[in-house]
Amino acid sequence: MDTAVQLALRAGQVVRKALTEEKRVSTKTSVVDLVTETDHLVEELIISSLREKYPTHRFIGEESTSAGSKCILTNSPTWIIDPIDGTCNFVHRFPLVAVSIGFAVNRELEFGVIYHCTEEKMYTARKGHGAFCNQEQLHVTKETGIRNALILTEIGPKRDPATLKLFLGNMEKFLTFHAHGVRIIGSATLALCQVASGAADGFYQFGLHCWDLAAATVIIREAGGVVIDTSGGPLDLMSCRVVAAGTKELAQSIAKELQTINYGRDDD
Amino acid sequence: MDTAVQLALRAGQVVRKALTEEKRVSTKTSVVDLVTETDHLVEELIISSLREKYPTHRFIGEESTSAGSKCILTNSPTWIIDPIDGTCNFVHRFPLVAVSIGFAVNRELEFGVIYHCTEEKMYTARKGHGAFCNQEQLHVTKETGIRNALILTEIGPKRDPATLKLFLGNMEKFLTFHAHGVRIIGSATLALCQVASGAADGFYQFGLHCWDLAAATVIIREAGGVVIDTSGGPLDLMSCRVVAAGTKELAQSIAKELQTINYGRDDD
Repeated sequence: MDTAVQLALRAGQVVRKALTEEKRVSTKTSVVDLVTETDHLVEELIISSLREKYPTHRFIGEESTSAGSKCILTNSPTWIIDPIDGTCNFVHRFPLVAVSIGFAVNRELEFGVIYHCTEEKMYTARKGHGAFCNQEQLHVTKETGIRNALILTEIGPKRDPATLKLFLGNMEKFLTFHAHGVRIIGSATLALCQVASGAADGFYQFGLHCWDLAAATVIIREAGGVVIDTSGGPLDLMSCRVVAAGTKELAQSIAKELQTINYGRDDD
Repeated sequence: MDTAVQLALRAGQVVRKALTEEKRVSTKTSVVDLVTETDHLVEELIISSLREKYPTHRFIGEESTSAGSKCILTNSPTWIIDPIDGTCNFVHRFPLVAVSIGFAVNRELEFGVIYHCTEEKMYTARKGHGAFCNQEQLHVTKETGIRNALILTEIGPKRDPATLKLFLGNMEKFLTFHAHGVRIIGSATLALCQVASGAADGFYQFGLHCWDLAAATVIIREAGGVVIDTSGGPLDLMSCRVVAAGTKELAQSIAKELQTINYGRDDD
C-alpha cells in the first residue's frame, strides 16, 4: 500500500500540473466520455512502476481496457487503476479530480488508495485496519432512511433518451421522498470518499467501472459502511453499478427504489 | 470591502468550528429548507459588526428576512448577506459551505465577498477592478454553446411533483444537447464562483435569493462573465432566478431552453 500511496502522490503532481495547461481531448464510448493525454500518461506511470516492482502481478486500468486489454479479475494479485477519475472535471478544470488505485488477491479487495489531487487529500484503507484521510480515521454516518439523507450520484456516459429518463426518474424518487439533497460532483471515487468520511449518507450509480469502485469499496467498508449491488445483493465489481451507504438499512432502501440502467459488464 | 473580507474570515472560523460539532436543525419554507443556530449566529456577528461601523446603512440578510425583516432594495447603501450558503451541506458536513457578503449603493452592486469556509478560499470583486480568489485574478471561459459545456445548477427548496418535473426537465435538456456534464454541488454561491474561476461554463437556478446572488454577480461580471434573468433579459436581483455564464451567447442559449419554475419574489 505504501507503494500505491507514493505513486498516487506522483500521479497527483502530474495531474495538478496538467490542470494548468491546455489539453487535447478525445472521446471514447460517447461524445461525453472523455479522455486526455494525461489519463494515458498517468496510467502508464503507475502501471510501469508497479510492473517493475511486482513483475508477476496483473493490472486492470481504465485506459489499458479502452485500448483493448481484457478486464478480467483472476485469483492473481491484481492492481485496479483509474488514473484520473473525473476526466470531464479535469478537462474543465473543475477541481474534483482523483487518482484511484485498488489491489485485490484471490478476487478479494485488500486495500485502496484514492488521492484527491487538488485538495491534496489522501484516502487510504487496508482490509481490517480502518479507513483514513491524511491520517485521520474515517467514519460513515448512521443515517438509516432516505428522508433527511444526503445522497450522491453520477450521470454516467450514456445520454440517449431512454437512459436519461431512467436516470432522472431515479433522482426524482429520492427528491420526492424528501432526501435533504442529491449531489452530482463529477467524480464517483470522490463521491464514495464523501460517504466514507460521513459527509454524505449514500451513493448510487449505473455506468461506472471496476476501477471507480475497487479502492473506494475498501475505504467505505473500513469506514464502517456497506457497498452492495443495485439489486440489493452482494457487490459485483464488474457489474457497472453500485449502491454505497453508511448503513445496511439505507443501502437497501436506496437499492429498492432504483430502476436499473443497463450498462453491460466490465468483463464482457 | 476590507471590512467585509475580515468579517467573512471571522465568520468562516465560526463555521469551520461548528462543522465539527453536533447541530440543532430547524426547517423554514419546506422540510428540506434548513437552518441552524450557526446561520443565526453568523448573520448576527456580521450585521452587528457592520451596523456599529456604518450605522446609517441598511441590511438584507437571509435569516433576518426569514424572521420577518423586509427584503427591499432601496437607494441607501445596503449590505446583502448570506451567513451560510449551503446550509444543507453544512448540516451534513459536506465540505462546500460559504459566507457571502454583497454591497449595493443606488441599487447597483458595488462589491462582493464570498468565503469558501472549508477550502479557505476568499473570492472578491469590486466593480471595475477585476475578480480575485486569494489574490489570483479570475477569468471566465469563452465557451459559447451548450454542447461540450460544463453546467451547474441547484435543486431549490420546493419538492412538489410539478416543481420536480420542471427541474428535471430542464436538466434533461442540457444532457440531451450534449453538455459535457451537469453538476449539483449544494451551494449556489460556490457554483457561481466556479463559473467566475473558469472551472465551469454556466449556471442556472430557480429558487435562490438575492443574498445568494449579490456578491457572486459582481464576482462573475468582474471575471468577464454575464449574469442575466432566466427570461434572457437583465438580472432582477429580487426575482429568485438567474442564469450566469462566461459568455453572453452561452447565457442566452441556457435561458432559451429553460422552463420557468415560479418561486415568487424576495421583495413580495
